[in-house]
Amino acid sequence: MKQDKTNLPQTAKGLEGVIALETAICDIDGAKGTLIYGGYDIQDLAANCSFEEVAFLLWNGHLPDSIQLEHLESSLTAERNIPPMIKDVMAMIPEDANPMAALRTGVSALALFDSEADDMSTEANYRKAIRLTAQIPTIIAQFERRRNGLEPIPPLRDGSIASNFLYMLSGVEPGTAAETTFDACLVLHAEHGLNASTFAGRVIGATLSDMYSAITGAIGALKGPLHGGANIKVMDMLMEIDRTGADPKKWVLDKLNNKERIMGFGHRVYKTLDPRAAILRDMLSGLSRESGTSKWFEMSLTIAETVIKEKGLHPNVDFFSASVYGTLNIPSDLFTPIFGMSRITGWTAHLLEQWADNRLIRPRAGYVGPKNLKTGR
Amino acid sequence: MKQDKTNLPQTAKGLEGVIALETAICDIDGAKGTLIYGGYDIQDLAANCSFEEVAFLLWNGHLPDSIQLEHLESSLTAERNIPPMIKDVMAMIPEDANPMAALRTGVSALALFDSEADDMSTEANYRKAIRLTAQIPTIIAQFERRRNGLEPIPPLRDGSIASNFLYMLSGVEPGTAAETTFDACLVLHAEHGLNASTFAGRVIGATLSDMYSAITGAIGALKGPLHGGANIKVMDMLMEIDRTGADPKKWVLDKLNNKERIMGFGHRVYKTLDPRAAILRDMLSGLSRESGTSKWFEMSLTIAETVIKEKGLHPNVDFFSASVYGTLNIPSDLFTPIFGMSRITGWTAHLLEQWADNRLIRPRAGYVGPKNLKTGR
Repeated sequence: MKQDKTNLPQTAKGLEGVIALETAICDIDGAKGTLIYGGYDIQDLAANCSFEEVAFLLWNGHLPDSIQLEHLESSLTAERNIPPMIKDVMAMIPEDANPMAALRTGVSALALFDSEADDMSTEANYRKAIRLTAQIPTIIAQFERRRNGLEPIPPLRDGSIASNFLYMLSGVEPGTAAETTFDACLVLHAEHGLNASTFAGRVIGATLSDMYSAITGAIGALKGPLHGGANIKVMDMLMEIDRTGADPKKWVLDKLNNKERIMGFGHRVYKTLDPRAAILRDMLSGLSRESGTSKWFEMSLTIAETVIKEKGLHPNVDFFSASVYGTLNIPSDLFTPIFGMSRITGWTAHLLEQWADNRLIRPRAGYVGPKNLKTGR
Repeated sequence: MKQDKTNLPQTAKGLEGVIALETAICDIDGAKGTLIYGGYDIQDLAANCSFEEVAFLLWNGHLPDSIQLEHLESSLTAERNIPPMIKDVMAMIPEDANPMAALRTGVSALALFDSEADDMSTEANYRKAIRLTAQIPTIIAQFERRRNGLEPIPPLRDGSIASNFLYMLSGVEPGTAAETTFDACLVLHAEHGLNASTFAGRVIGATLSDMYSAITGAIGALKGPLHGGANIKVMDMLMEIDRTGADPKKWVLDKLNNKERIMGFGHRVYKTLDPRAAILRDMLSGLSRESGTSKWFEMSLTIAETVIKEKGLHPNVDFFSASVYGTLNIPSDLFTPIFGMSRITGWTAHLLEQWADNRLIRPRAGYVGPKNLKTGR
């Protein structure tokens, strides 16, 4: 007798441990502490590839040759400007708005001015992945400028996404260490398997809805404090230590004695070491030297040493990215939008993969409510 | 030895048959052809309860008493106006925009002007569920008026959601049959378990992101042709028959002889009868009489009879809702936004349920890509 799998319900609260789909984009081995994108170790990529090369890898499954890279870079540069109507929408957003709600609204509105928004051909979707990767930094930078009462700065016509974004925030082109370190942050956050935002995007995309719909949903998921936002809490901690003038080591020991949690240590997936943390730690000294601001770096090293020694817990990527962004003078409520500006490459790669062999993603719910009630009317 | 469930991966493509969570909101028995909301059969609810009562049931798990209903109705009425800035955003949307993209953007923007947007208390989330249910009809109606070069009509200060929506579209208060039948459509589409849009909303909400983020994502999922949109295809068919002056019975027989599919028959879940279809069929005669337009009703009856006789397939809810909306002169590209204006009650009920006992929803992906590649740089 043929067994019908769909008649064998499996309860799996939160879908923990359930394999929902197959992917060739990313593999995470939490026990070994390894993360690979399309076959390449994250440490190899962060040390040797730009964010643009990594975007190509995620979208195409292989690294670009020099002509492919040049072509992608010029497409990304050409698409940086946002449509005039989107600038008007962004200008209407209140200055105290949640930056992720602003980004979500800006990205949703982009679809209204993209004539390819509902073109579901692979070619059009690839172009939209490029467009979103190019335009999200502009949306974030314009929001940041406007809420500070400053004129938005138009994007540069050349240079990397990392360099152009830092320029659009401040009007000053960044130094080499700033560009390199920020670029590495973008590489490190670009992709991380079926996290909640990527999964939300694939669920939406699997209805054959368009890329903007899926990305708008993914941004909404990333906004959640259980997903994005861990590095904001790290920065809050660093700023509290800075503001109170406390000795970082003593501050940590006091917290640990009070059985309080130190933010940015341990990881739900990585049981040993988060491979992304060491990369940022190693880049922070050069960045601190170039920027003339070493306080966040020094504070972080002391905190990390203390927590490793006292608790055996290792710092994760959020712990050091907070120091990087702090050293770059980026306000902490932009950390999650910047996470999105990087993860857009992973999200869109997952959508391209989803649509190449689409299947609706639709689990079931077990009903535990009342039955057989009557209105009696 | 304790068995760790998370170490036993189960592959379930598309999560078919997997029970992701428990719910007390809705139960569907596809084999029996029954649908219940909070214990009440959909036929009982459609015959005896207003959409507002059903919204209360979905949000609270029980039907309202007369004081609770009056309170909800006055809250829903008071919240119908959208903020002035949202009107401005809606005014900027191109007239040829996809209506679901316009709704998604309007709802995302609502958050920017709601001071409670990021308040995750149960009370604030309940108020936001009311606000979204009240404001989505206004957004849809304003979009429809503007794209036709007409001034938006401010919402009425009393009356049902169904009546007010039809009024905001045309400027004329609907007759009894129109209001009753449209109200029944809203009741019938309010909830349907863990469909893709509701599931997307819960995945987003489970990161503890806000209600607007989750609903923006749900609207994006509903936009997909594999989810919303089936009744648009039914209407396309009815309009083609009407335009060509074909005999409906002959048209259907020709299609069936060519082994073509007739839209609006059979259902992925309901293996016998879609319980919602019969309710609308029975209301269509009264609506046709009141409106003086019986062509869609008569055509639908003939098509349904023919397909039942020839193929043994029964019409589903989409088949008859197309005729209802067609008879009400609603353009077919508003059918999916209207689906959303009803389903907002189910979506928000699921979010309230999710947050009452939250758990991140995060399955895994199986990696099938290359390994051990080196950049060699």
